[in-house]
Amino acid sequence: MPVFKADQLVRIGTKIFLAAGASPEEAKTVSEFLVKANLVGHDSHGVIRVIQYVKAIEDGVIKPGAKIEVIKETDSLAIINGNWGFGQVVAKKAMEKAIEKAGKNDVSVVCVFNCNHVGRLADYTLMASEKNMIGLAMVNSIKSVAPFGGKERMLSTGPISFAFPTNMKFPFVIDIATSVVAEGKLRFMLHKGEKIPLGWIINKDGNPSNDPRDFYEGGALLPLGGDIAGHKGFGLGLAVDILCGILAGSGCAYMETKKGNGVFFEVINIDKFVPVEEFKEKVTELLRVIKSSKPRPGFREVIIPGEPEYLTEKIRLREGIQVPERTWREIKNIAKRLGLDEKSLLAE
Amino acid sequence: MPVFKADQLVRIGTKIFLAAGASPEEAKTVSEFLVKANLVGHDSHGVIRVIQYVKAIEDGVIKPGAKIEVIKETDSLAIINGNWGFGQVVAKKAMEKAIEKAGKNDVSVVCVFNCNHVGRLADYTLMASEKNMIGLAMVNSIKSVAPFGGKERMLSTGPISFAFPTNMKFPFVIDIATSVVAEGKLRFMLHKGEKIPLGWIINKDGNPSNDPRDFYEGGALLPLGGDIAGHKGFGLGLAVDILCGILAGSGCAYMETKKGNGVFFEVINIDKFVPVEEFKEKVTELLRVIKSSKPRPGFREVIIPGEPEYLTEKIRLREGIQVPERTWREIKNIAKRLGLDEKSLLAE
Repeated sequence: MPVFKADQLVRIGTKIFLAAGASPEEAKTVSEFLVKANLVGHDSHGVIRVIQYVKAIEDGVIKPGAKIEVIKETDSLAIINGNWGFGQVVAKKAMEKAIEKAGKNDVSVVCVFNCNHVGRLADYTLMASEKNMIGLAMVNSIKSVAPFGGKERMLSTGPISFAFPTNMKFPFVIDIATSVVAEGKLRFMLHKGEKIPLGWIINKDGNPSNDPRDFYEGGALLPLGGDIAGHKGFGLGLAVDILCGILAGSGCAYMETKKGNGVFFEVINIDKFVPVEEFKEKVTELLRVIKSSKPRPGFREVIIPGEPEYLTEKIRLREGIQVPERTWREIKNIAKRLGLDEKSLLAE
Repeated sequence: MPVFKADQLVRIGTKIFLAAGASPEEAKTVSEFLVKANLVGHDSHGVIRVIQYVKAIEDGVIKPGAKIEVIKETDSLAIINGNWGFGQVVAKKAMEKAIEKAGKNDVSVVCVFNCNHVGRLADYTLMASEKNMIGLAMVNSIKSVAPFGGKERMLSTGPISFAFPTNMKFPFVIDIATSVVAEGKLRFMLHKGEKIPLGWIINKDGNPSNDPRDFYEGGALLPLGGDIAGHKGFGLGLAVDILCGILAGSGCAYMETKKGNGVFFEVINIDKFVPVEEFKEKVTELLRVIKSSKPRPGFREVIIPGEPEYLTEKIRLREGIQVPERTWREIKNIAKRLGLDEKSLLAE
């Protein structure tokens, strides 16, 4: 399997997006977000998406150079029309705006519609925590999750992310789908040809299934909480769909016309509440106490959200990022079609 | 079992709290909150708590007449010292302030510390949705939940509530603990002498248990998501503990000194984002579509959050509220100790 240094992969992605019609800023931003996902171990959101994004540009789904329009703005809120530009470019601008507004005020909300896939939410909430603020993010997308007790797809996986600044050595970030698992995990198991645990999905008749193919043949993901507490994941998923689909104006997951991500970003300026150093010290102490608490039988230790990504990133910064043969071949093919041979792709 | 009309129970509770030293406003507010919980079917948060609250007043835990101090305030935030008054009285004031601030601005956050048990979060978020705004609430309390992979209690059940205005006939409100179940459900099963499903708790050694007694003998509740996705409930519980314990300044659940509820309230003024009637119409349509979607085998229909409470309230407004013999006897005993005989308790 070919192995690349992160900056090398960023350059490769940037060149391809440039050749596909993106501006230099767009190309670099999107490529950096994708490689960041690879670095922290979320390969499903990594450079494998170059292939999909170039196709989306060719199909007119992603519109390079799209104007990011602020259609409504006050001291603490903004609503943004992404005009179907790159999701990462639009969402990054939106979070920058939310941080700027929270910096002047105490709390801000920025919503986005007409926005393509933004990638991992943690990338945006961490922008806020790096500025010593609290970042909160939610997105909705096309339907894939059944309501609790229902068998039809009605909601999206509706992830929620929180990031808080700390004095820990790793960025502390929560980033969770409100379904039992994200769709990417199903696809991964499907490609491996393996069964999945009961409790992830139902088939088209609403019965439990351990075969990931059943999801793609009319089944649905189950809401977080499963049979015991699935009404909770369902409730959270509804809240995400309303904030991102209706407040942000991007449309709800159930709609046949739904595409892309509706985005809800919120930033809280800690220093307006409590001195930020005191806040960070207290969060650090909370995480330290929990991290050092006793594990259950079958667990080696308690893992803090954000910790596994930090450990993977350390390794991959040192040892490089492995790109599967098939992915690399497809990336090279797309590059070639855009007039970039392997040599120019790999040039510094 | 004695049966009471709701307004009769409110009067009974008010008289007892008055006799225990509460002001007329405090006595009425707290009694109304408790009876509202009975009405909607959450008897564990209902008049049974009169007994506990009177004891808390006698023990100096609840301080009737406590001054509610706003220690920090801007256009969109407030931090409130509840000075250990009645939780409901303090939290109601806090939500009123959050609504007032969001009315003038776009979004507001109000945090509370030194606050006793506030009861059901839905009561507060619904105050916002009744004003055509979005209400968000979280509280933390003493530790009862293990981190994912851990066996020691580190977090509280950390509930989250969202309420959104709609044109449905019932108030749409999500109110969920970030643990698999709330502690009240364990206590209920313990009193019934029944086993609980595996996946709710672990015993003191960190092993799964179906005996509710194991929780009270050093065990812990499990975070929402269970073995498959418990890192998600853990993440949400951490976010709640940080917002309520550190941002609000009430202390984290793991601390031995922790008592009462830390409160985080947020209100979003919908009309500053989209016309509120359009918002309500779209939420109503979303809920209508989901409600009418096909149920899974084993389910009769999809239940919308807030719907069961509405149905129970309709019945109990008509047929009255049943109070178990033992509860009624204890309430009468407490009243008697405070100089109220049954006749004066029941007088109009």
